[in-house]
Amino acid sequence: MTSKKLLNSVAGCADDALAGLVACDPNLQLLQGHRVALRSDLDSLKGRVALLSGGGSGHEPAHAGFIGKGMLTGVIAGAVFTSPAVGSILAAIRAVAQAGTVGTLLIVKNYTGDRLNFGLAREQAQAEGIPVEMVVIGDDSAFTVLKKAGRRGLCGTVLIHKVAGALAEAGVGLEEITKRVSAVAKAMGTLGVSLSSCSVPGSRPTFELSADELELGLGIHGEAGVRRIKMAAADEIVALMLDHMTNPSNASHVPVQSEGRGVKIARALVGIFMSALEMPGISLTLLLVDEPLLKLIDAETSASAWPNVAKVPVTGRKRSRAAPTEPLEAPESTAAGGLASKQMALVLERVCAALLGLEEHLNALDRAAGDGDCGTTHSRAARAIQGWLKEGPPPASPAQLLSKLSLLLLEKMGGSSGALYGLFLTAAAQPLKAKTDLPAWSAAMDAGLEAMQKYGKAAPGDRTMLDSLWAAGQELQAWKSPGADLFQILTKAVKSAEAAAEATKDMEAGAGRASYISSARLDQPDPGAVAAAAILRAILEVLQSQGV
Amino acid sequence: MTSKKLLNSVAGCADDALAGLVACDPNLQLLQGHRVALRSDLDSLKGRVALLSGGGSGHEPAHAGFIGKGMLTGVIAGAVFTSPAVGSILAAIRAVAQAGTVGTLLIVKNYTGDRLNFGLAREQAQAEGIPVEMVVIGDDSAFTVLKKAGRRGLCGTVLIHKVAGALAEAGVGLEEITKRVSAVAKAMGTLGVSLSSCSVPGSRPTFELSADELELGLGIHGEAGVRRIKMAAADEIVALMLDHMTNPSNASHVPVQSEGRGVKIARALVGIFMSALEMPGISLTLLLVDEPLLKLIDAETSASAWPNVAKVPVTGRKRSRAAPTEPLEAPESTAAGGLASKQMALVLERVCAALLGLEEHLNALDRAAGDGDCGTTHSRAARAIQGWLKEGPPPASPAQLLSKLSLLLLEKMGGSSGALYGLFLTAAAQPLKAKTDLPAWSAAMDAGLEAMQKYGKAAPGDRTMLDSLWAAGQELQAWKSPGADLFQILTKAVKSAEAAAEATKDMEAGAGRASYISSARLDQPDPGAVAAAAILRAILEVLQSQGV
Repeated sequence: MTSKKLLNSVAGCADDALAGLVACDPNLQLLQGHRVALRSDLDSLKGRVALLSGGGSGHEPAHAGFIGKGMLTGVIAGAVFTSPAVGSILAAIRAVAQAGTVGTLLIVKNYTGDRLNFGLAREQAQAEGIPVEMVVIGDDSAFTVLKKAGRRGLCGTVLIHKVAGALAEAGVGLEEITKRVSAVAKAMGTLGVSLSSCSVPGSRPTFELSADELELGLGIHGEAGVRRIKMAAADEIVALMLDHMTNPSNASHVPVQSEGRGVKIARALVGIFMSALEMPGISLTLLLVDEPLLKLIDAETSASAWPNVAKVPVTGRKRSRAAPTEPLEAPESTAAGGLASKQMALVLERVCAALLGLEEHLNALDRAAGDGDCGTTHSRAARAIQGWLKEGPPPASPAQLLSKLSLLLLEKMGGSSGALYGLFLTAAAQPLKAKTDLPAWSAAMDAGLEAMQKYGKAAPGDRTMLDSLWAAGQELQAWKSPGADLFQILTKAVKSAEAAAEATKDMEAGAGRASYISSARLDQPDPGAVAAAAILRAILEVLQSQGV
Repeated sequence: MTSKKLLNSVAGCADDALAGLVACDPNLQLLQGHRVALRSDLDSLKGRVALLSGGGSGHEPAHAGFIGKGMLTGVIAGAVFTSPAVGSILAAIRAVAQAGTVGTLLIVKNYTGDRLNFGLAREQAQAEGIPVEMVVIGDDSAFTVLKKAGRRGLCGTVLIHKVAGALAEAGVGLEEITKRVSAVAKAMGTLGVSLSSCSVPGSRPTFELSADELELGLGIHGEAGVRRIKMAAADEIVALMLDHMTNPSNASHVPVQSEGRGVKIARALVGIFMSALEMPGISLTLLLVDEPLLKLIDAETSASAWPNVAKVPVTGRKRSRAAPTEPLEAPESTAAGGLASKQMALVLERVCAALLGLEEHLNALDRAAGDGDCGTTHSRAARAIQGWLKEGPPPASPAQLLSKLSLLLLEKMGGSSGALYGLFLTAAAQPLKAKTDLPAWSAAMDAGLEAMQKYGKAAPGDRTMLDSLWAAGQELQAWKSPGADLFQILTKAVKSAEAAAEATKDMEAGAGRASYISSARLDQPDPGAVAAAAILRAILEVLQSQGV
């Protein structure tokens, strides 16, 4: 069975990929009749050296993503994992020559097909009198004993595009660019690791890896690596890769000493530069740099796939900031442990007892509409409050009390309910900072409800805890009138909340988890609304019993 | 069975991902004690508005890749696909406030957890006196009937980061930025399609899709989309997506008319902006723009994941260039069909006959060492030459003849052999342009051998066709001496080539396909070397029979 791919046709996918890239990037143009992309400002390059690269398709964003001012002049793309046609390479060389460039450097990855086809085009172009040089990049550090075929061309090729591009942009000549990039290519190594294979469009995966294996040192076409290694922690894999790449007994090693020995990382480029179709994995490329080379790496480019890289060293900079200072807590306006504080404790204890008594009922209601843990969640909150009360008397200031409760529920209750109660209490605490009279309590209810709606996106009628709180809040508006009666109005509010909770059984869920369930299956009240009404009832009962 | 991932631990992977990103980007720093990344130049932002975003991890490069001058001030990251902790959001708000920024805009994707946690942190920060606004981005165009929960926040959020970032960088105030980005967010829509599921680290894939199905309109956590569609051509899928996104009967549609109705594409941003772990697929985001908005999209940013985008419209530009002109062919120096031309034809016919006679023998030799098609490849070349000769007499000029043969073999012979013979002939033709005496033919052999070695990377002794050609070339050096005898030297050359071909059976393969086979299994001569010697023998025999 072939792999799933999003494409129009297997035969046309390389053409489509290049045409799509050009269509989206106004800096590029296609060369008619060939799978070739060129800078659209080609005619402004008179007197400059042209840089052409390319190879098989399937390595996107390489190579066409690296066309632009300061990088490549153009690329020639083959079919997937297939070297491009000599005729197209020659056409690209002719096109840049006819645009007035003074010579062309071909940057070729070391694969037999690419060497031969780019080489042939070069010979033909030279026979026509066009100055053409060619560098063959082999940055593979996988093989410890060098084969005749030499090191394979891998992701490091993109760095050569960058360096050559900066030199060409600066007006350096063909011979000098060829010399410079040949030297740079020798100071570079790349090693890859993959978690599984890629598959060429229309084909089966190139190879199979078992679930606990990685392929080390493979090429960019799914070809075999140096060995299979056992899955390990990412840090261990990277250490193993670096050791392999820098081991002096490896004929293709990069001459840097392993980590921790004074190596300074000048730049770290992270991203997708040269892929192998959908093959999952990473490759590391090390390049030894000096200041002149860094300037070329840092030079501006308009190539779409070149990343935004900070032009400062990675090593040796502070990478963390001390956590911010927390605001000082306001001193308690009324001493904890005083009369008000004791009343608060009594209220909270009754609320906790009520919620614990409802645990099974709430869970049962929730099993019909949600995940069946509404009672458990509220009991967890109740136990957290009970534990907190045992640590000492609560603040007597209502604003401070609500703020403390908010933090406690956020931390201990968890889930959306914890966040919603936390929001309600944080917002409700604000109006109580200045005053604690009945209008202030009504305003606190308003602020809490507003925050709950704003961030929770539920409205009254959506079959949530908001329904009972909202109903109560409407009644509590009466507290804002002069001479309002605490108990008369609070009693009405509690009754209204209980009625609203009961009424949720006829509602369709508009928010929260129950909104994913069809209304026909919902014939019980919403457990969150029931719990909220029970909390209000508990508060009323304590206050009445104390005759506040 | 859980999916294969490259990580250190499931529990620490979100911390590692953020720390790794910060370690590689000197423009970033971590906030101690929190999963928060901030601009490292935070202290230079006094008097500016701070922009914070974030959410669950697993959407890399979002959101930390969009921190930088001209984009976000910082991000708060949760565990994988989990909303970040309120305490960390609050710490980030405090940190930017204490650095001297004059207010913070929270840019939040529309998910319940993010709304609640960012909302809570906002309420708490406001209670501390820090000006904080919050925009909730819902750019999902999947659902045709709006749910209470609203549109989900998807990839379009990154455009909001960009627009807000450009405004903040320009010194615009908190209220105005909030107003502007809220308006922009309304003119935007995103729709995704996936080929298969992602899997949260340590977990199984979130959902299953059969081999011929795609999920349309899904979210960025593997949650369900609007429907499953049958696999189709990429163009059809994209057309379906655009139709869905722009259909006025879709409550979350983007108000643009479908393609081909005068829509102008101002910018096309292509890349990885907001991923969903390893989920394969694409999403399209449409944003209606005017010139002021384009200026903000185009504004400079140092954010590492923002792409290099050309600041010119995509629509309405010429996207292709005429193929280059081909050089005029030099007029034939000697008329085709003359005596020399007839001799050339006789030589080629004998070469073709020799190769066709060797087809089975060469294939048998190749079966032992390669893929068994060496004879078939050479016969294909022979038949191509025979067909070409039937079309008319060959050029009498040796240089032109070799060039024509080169193109013919490249086109018809195929494979590495076709390319290598093409290279040989192209290079060999050059010294024969000026003269065609015996020294020139020896020089032609030298040039061909040099090109073959240079691009083919084989050396004498590597068990390839080069071995016999090289041996012949050594003998042909004698042609360069005054008064050298054509037949005497050519006869020695052919014998030397045949001896060299025979000697390949004791060689280890150093290049070509046979280099992958252990030398112990190679006890027959190399078929390419045998074929090359046979070609030389055929040439000698024809010339001798004609008494040239």
